[in-house]
Amino acid sequence: MNLVLLGAGRIGRVHAASIARHPRARLQAVVDVDRPAAESLAAEYGAKVVDSAEAAVSGPGVEGVLVCTSTDTHVEMIELAARYEKPVFCEKPIDLDLKKVDACLQKVEKSGIALMIGFNRRFDPHFRALEQRLAAGEIGSLEMLRITSRDPEPPPMEYVKVSGGIFKDMTIHDFDMARFLLGEEPVELFATGSCLVDGEIGKAGDIDTSLVVMRTAGGKLCYIENSRRAIYGYDQRIEALGSGGMLQAGNPSPTTVTRLSEEAVTSDKPPYFFLERYAEAYRAELDEFIQVVAEGRAPAVDGRDGRAALALAEAATISNREARPVKMED
Amino acid sequence: MNLVLLGAGRIGRVHAASIARHPRARLQAVVDVDRPAAESLAAEYGAKVVDSAEAAVSGPGVEGVLVCTSTDTHVEMIELAARYEKPVFCEKPIDLDLKKVDACLQKVEKSGIALMIGFNRRFDPHFRALEQRLAAGEIGSLEMLRITSRDPEPPPMEYVKVSGGIFKDMTIHDFDMARFLLGEEPVELFATGSCLVDGEIGKAGDIDTSLVVMRTAGGKLCYIENSRRAIYGYDQRIEALGSGGMLQAGNPSPTTVTRLSEEAVTSDKPPYFFLERYAEAYRAELDEFIQVVAEGRAPAVDGRDGRAALALAEAATISNREARPVKMED
Amino acid sequence: MNLVLLGAGRIGRVHAASIARHPRARLQAVVDVDRPAAESLAAEYGAKVVDSAEAAVSGPGVEGVLVCTSTDTHVEMIELAARYEKPVFCEKPIDLDLKKVDACLQKVEKSGIALMIGFNRRFDPHFRALEQRLAAGEIGSLEMLRITSRDPEPPPMEYVKVSGGIFKDMTIHDFDMARFLLGEEPVELFATGSCLVDGEIGKAGDIDTSLVVMRTAGGKLCYIENSRRAIYGYDQRIEALGSGGMLQAGNPSPTTVTRLSEEAVTSDKPPYFFLERYAEAYRAELDEFIQVVAEGRAPAVDGRDGRAALALAEAATISNREARPVKMED
Amino acid sequence: MNLVLLGAGRIGRVHAASIARHPRARLQAVVDVDRPAAESLAAEYGAKVVDSAEAAVSGPGVEGVLVCTSTDTHVEMIELAARYEKPVFCEKPIDLDLKKVDACLQKVEKSGIALMIGFNRRFDPHFRALEQRLAAGEIGSLEMLRITSRDPEPPPMEYVKVSGGIFKDMTIHDFDMARFLLGEEPVELFATGSCLVDGEIGKAGDIDTSLVVMRTAGGKLCYIENSRRAIYGYDQRIEALGSGGMLQAGNPSPTTVTRLSEEAVTSDKPPYFFLERYAEAYRAELDEFIQVVAEGRAPAVDGRDGRAALALAEAATISNREARPVKMED
Repeated sequence: MNLVLLGAGRIGRVHAASIARHPRARLQAVVDVDRPAAESLAAEYGAKVVDSAEAAVSGPGVEGVLVCTSTDTHVEMIELAARYEKPVFCEKPIDLDLKKVDACLQKVEKSGIALMIGFNRRFDPHFRALEQRLAAGEIGSLEMLRITSRDPEPPPMEYVKVSGGIFKDMTIHDFDMARFLLGEEPVELFATGSCLVDGEIGKAGDIDTSLVVMRTAGGKLCYIENSRRAIYGYDQRIEALGSGGMLQAGNPSPTTVTRLSEEAVTSDKPPYFFLERYAEAYRAELDEFIQVVAEGRAPAVDGRDGRAALALAEAATISNREARPVKMED
Repeated sequence: MNLVLLGAGRIGRVHAASIARHPRARLQAVVDVDRPAAESLAAEYGAKVVDSAEAAVSGPGVEGVLVCTSTDTHVEMIELAARYEKPVFCEKPIDLDLKKVDACLQKVEKSGIALMIGFNRRFDPHFRALEQRLAAGEIGSLEMLRITSRDPEPPPMEYVKVSGGIFKDMTIHDFDMARFLLGEEPVELFATGSCLVDGEIGKAGDIDTSLVVMRTAGGKLCYIENSRRAIYGYDQRIEALGSGGMLQAGNPSPTTVTRLSEEAVTSDKPPYFFLERYAEAYRAELDEFIQVVAEGRAPAVDGRDGRAALALAEAATISNREARPVKMED
Repeated sequence: MNLVLLGAGRIGRVHAASIARHPRARLQAVVDVDRPAAESLAAEYGAKVVDSAEAAVSGPGVEGVLVCTSTDTHVEMIELAARYEKPVFCEKPIDLDLKKVDACLQKVEKSGIALMIGFNRRFDPHFRALEQRLAAGEIGSLEMLRITSRDPEPPPMEYVKVSGGIFKDMTIHDFDMARFLLGEEPVELFATGSCLVDGEIGKAGDIDTSLVVMRTAGGKLCYIENSRRAIYGYDQRIEALGSGGMLQAGNPSPTTVTRLSEEAVTSDKPPYFFLERYAEAYRAELDEFIQVVAEGRAPAVDGRDGRAALALAEAATISNREARPVKMED
Repeated sequence: MNLVLLGAGRIGRVHAASIARHPRARLQAVVDVDRPAAESLAAEYGAKVVDSAEAAVSGPGVEGVLVCTSTDTHVEMIELAARYEKPVFCEKPIDLDLKKVDACLQKVEKSGIALMIGFNRRFDPHFRALEQRLAAGEIGSLEMLRITSRDPEPPPMEYVKVSGGIFKDMTIHDFDMARFLLGEEPVELFATGSCLVDGEIGKAGDIDTSLVVMRTAGGKLCYIENSRRAIYGYDQRIEALGSGGMLQAGNPSPTTVTRLSEEAVTSDKPPYFFLERYAEAYRAELDEFIQVVAEGRAPAVDGRDGRAALALAEAATISNREARPVKMED
């Protein structure tokens, strides 16, 4: 299966490596405005460099497109794939603007192509196991859901400035995870936050520490806690309370080695970096996309999921700015 | 040291047992409107039964008073102790009504007696260790605080009806814990909840599943999650994130025995009942009161703490009812 | 119930405190060759000091005797209690010499008194739970048993010199635990060891690091690992493998507080001292003795148990010295 | 780098997959007496099938040989590689007969080829981390080492019969691990065992449950516990006690998901199968061999290591049979 990669940055390289390791897929072409980046990546995996996205997508034998460019070009790239009727995988978010997303999704729908959104955490083995056991009724009816998601350190300021704010950049993953697990849509949301980690983030109009509380029509409560700093590592945990018990998914540990010393019992801290933490998730995500292409079926995470998470992020942005709960019909 | 116990119910019995085990204290008299309860308790510990609280409090040699009666009589009992200038220990809450509490505290202040409030969790060895290590700067500056507090099952409906609602009855402990750990007062609060456990609770105008989000003037975020049902036991945990790391206090385990079977690795669930979970806390709390009496000093948890936790519970009640954030100056 | 305490040293003080806390027991008299020690202990608990053991044991109303004197006087004290037909609790070991033990047990048997041996670990809640779950068949048929028992640091050299060697002093507890759990007697044993912790121990003819391997008639394997040094605390663990799974009992943790820092995840180390680790076990052990006295029944751990553990310790001493397996019929 | 695979069975397939995933290596040829097995494997990875080992090893461009045939042909295959001066990787054990091994190693030495032995556990990330931290002095001087190694279930009886017995087949891995960690050679050994899992194993003259105790010249103690049955999974753990503390390496857990129910807290059991448990170790092991070939250097685990582990296994076999400790000079 010939795949085209648009964007040869950090996340593009992750997917290129997954394609190389996959027995059914081949990286055909790489496109990037940063030509040397495209060339280096293409050379590593025996792909060719193509100058324009359109030339690459419309190339002979292309079966699928991966969009790993900067967020502001996602819609354009998706629409390009739609025009040439190629299944497309796009990194989150589709766009920072809901109206642009809606227009894009309409075009996708008309074209009939499969659009998969890169909410990689759904493919993490720990969270997936939790979801399956929840669905299997292991804790009865879900009542409270806590999602902890903390980055080890803030991203560079130039990234913060174009990120759309913490809710659209970081919490959006957790909004998707909430929807994945809740089994009903949140109908109301309250968000609040502070700038405690880096004053520069505050000057840029953003926050770095936040809490979001959501409720569904059925009264289920969900809260998401984010921080741009957790010096002990990339902290990604979920806790689900139900009528029949609790399920927790914790942080994996690089090794099982424990040391007992005169001072304490010490064990490994969580992986520091998201690429390390979600290595398996990225592989499983790419595998899903390859199956989607091969079987011509709808993906497990589609454009509507991308849209719904963005709508929650938008509501959280408003709730935090106006210090009031926001209804999702608002 | 001669102590008088007002109220021979469940919590009164806990304190009577602690007094009996304490090398410096003696249970002199027990008072309860339920005379047989008073008699049985008095007989067990060699105390006498006295008909009226006033007679007991004013008795010869009385050095301290424990108020373990129903909430609606707390103020009356505290004021009685104030009148006779006896140090008094009172179970939480002082009252469900802030104005009555304010009036009572004024009288206490005038009398000069020590008033200690029964926020037992401050004396739990796990939470106390967490507080001390937080204060020692082990995680730098505190940024986020999570308090998990779930009962294994709802109290009887007759109790729910007079409890003042989940925030004044159950969350009040967590409000005190938040103040104990935050090191600054919450200035704003948002509370929400659902009735998911028992429809009867909803019919009584209360909720059984709730979330409270608070922020301090310094921007620290704190959230409290409560449920009236956790079938795996009495779930009491704290997690504090700071600029320099995280401290967690989990549930203790009755035994360290683990079993590895064909199905899973299984270990003990948390203690089911609060008396079991907080056995050590109740002993340490009583010890603090005995030291307060002996040394004539102010208690670690006083009437102002009781008042502050109630004010937060009042604000949470309003926030949940009116679906809006509430400022603590409101 | 009036109890007499022979020996006011460290372990005597532990039992005196348990008696004081017990609702059914009273410390009547204390005897110690170190008169000031006896006086201080007696004063603390309202007991009287008696000059001779015989005067104390034969005193009016005495219902039970606790022997906490030095090992070389245990037999004499047990026989004294037998003469006056008082139930007796004796710290381990009965004696270092098997023949003296046999002669003593004959006298005890003739007298008909109850003799309980202070193998306190049988009363530890963790090990007791493991034993009950093993007996309940949770892991099918037991096949391998590991007992880990390490002291935080070596005892004083003057103690080492009269201790009878590591197997009779330290491993004896583990031999009893093995018998408690195996459900069959060991029939063969191999012991080996080194002097790695303190050269002085070696000069005294003893070892400080040892391994004992035992097998029962039914082929069950059991091994005991001891060290006189575990700088992280008092390490006491058991692991039982059976046809249907595994049961493990680990070290308890003083608090549940965990810290995640830039370096590692750290939690509490085990209790450092045996009095702390086995506090509950000592209370439960004394409670058993009080029930034995009250009900006139045989104790859970009797003289034959004391004899059997000593016989294994003797065999281990020979095995290690002669570098060969020893059969228990030897 | 062109590699030749001799043996297309279970472990051969593991290495073939690692070669395919490796950026620097290519599977050139596969040899197996079971021609269809060789063909299926060759087809999967684009290799050719060669009829004789000699033809494959002597083929043009061959840079390294992997020996994954049955144990009784290992020596022949190693010597073949030596003849053609190709670096060779051989699965453990080299042979069941020490004299044959010695003769083979002499030929290897003369030829100057690199011989790497497949003690895969040295490459497990958990055990490797433990080894590195031990070597870094984290627990001071090593005093006791425990190696737990239990299979989930016995192998087929036809395998047991040609395996050379539990010590040469199963414990041999642990003997290598002991040598890897101890830092000194064991000088004395005592082994014992029982047939508790399957009577057929006993009838074949073997045991299924065993204990080995070893001591080094420096007095360090090491014990290895094996069982052919651990119904909870593949149990592989190490515990090292030193003068400065303890290091433990436990079993990894497939997911971090924990469930709290009315009955217990349950988490994942260890992986059931060795291929799953040691997946990373097999990859790292193959990577080491590829580096050995590329750099023309000596491997981390060589023929002398294979010989030493076998000698310990031989000594254990004698010790268990004759019920006596065996000195390694014997």
